[in-house]
Amino acid sequence: MSVTARVKWTGGMQFVGESETGHAIVLDASPDDGGTDSGMRPMELLLVGVGSCSGMDIVSVLQKKRQKVTGLEVSVAGENADEYPKRYTAIHVEWIITGHNLSEDAVKHAVDLSMEKYCSVKATLEHSAKVSFGYRIVNT
Amino acid sequence: MSVTARVKWTGGMQFVGESETGHAIVLDASPDDGGTDSGMRPMELLLVGVGSCSGMDIVSVLQKKRQKVTGLEVSVAGENADEYPKRYTAIHVEWIITGHNLSEDAVKHAVDLSMEKYCSVKATLEHSAKVSFGYRIVNT
Repeated sequence: MSVTARVKWTGGMQFVGESETGHAIVLDASPDDGGTDSGMRPMELLLVGVGSCSGMDIVSVLQKKRQKVTGLEVSVAGENADEYPKRYTAIHVEWIITGHNLSEDAVKHAVDLSMEKYCSVKATLEHSAKVSFGYRIVNT
Repeated sequence: MSVTARVKWTGGMQFVGESETGHAIVLDASPDDGGTDSGMRPMELLLVGVGSCSGMDIVSVLQKKRQKVTGLEVSVAGENADEYPKRYTAIHVEWIITGHNLSEDAVKHAVDLSMEKYCSVKATLEHSAKVSFGYRIVNT
């Protein structure tokens, strides 16, 4: 299985990335690094990637378990090495899962399935960064 | 140094990711995976990340070397493992650098600096995926 993407320079430090599924995103550097902050930083994409990948898994598993999920928010924090190339050495993912009568066991199982079995982004990044995680359930 | 991002579920398999720099992106799964293809897949973000990260390095180094770069396009291809969690096991990056009287030595040096020293995304992903690369110079 293979995935492809194209990225094109649009001037300054601005680039437009386009996925093979036809979606585009603007990337840019900060003014400190010669950019104009017109889009996300490349390293930010990795954190959004692990947040959305795990979020899809968790929603999907909880829905299969007939849990009534009404909201899911993910916070992701990455720690960079101080020295170039400043790779991620640690990533923490935290989910706030809102719903009606959510079962703690079902949520724990969904989180564990994502982290241990399904989330491709986590499984890629964890070879560089120690990945830790936590969750909070809000029953309304 | 640390980087943060937030991701919010917006229904179905759709999520909106927001970086701490204030930029947003829509993520979604394919219809086969219960989504509606309203945005990029999480795994695509990693390829766009390495393409844009390396592109910024290369443009920046070439401009410091007073090279006249007029265009830069990056193609990125990732190979997934067949089995879950389907992490990237190989990534190939290819740059087409267009300009006037571009020096082959300067381009090679810029590419090597990005791949060996500066590109944080490559340095993170290469712990999971073998990263290979190539470039083509088009002098106009």
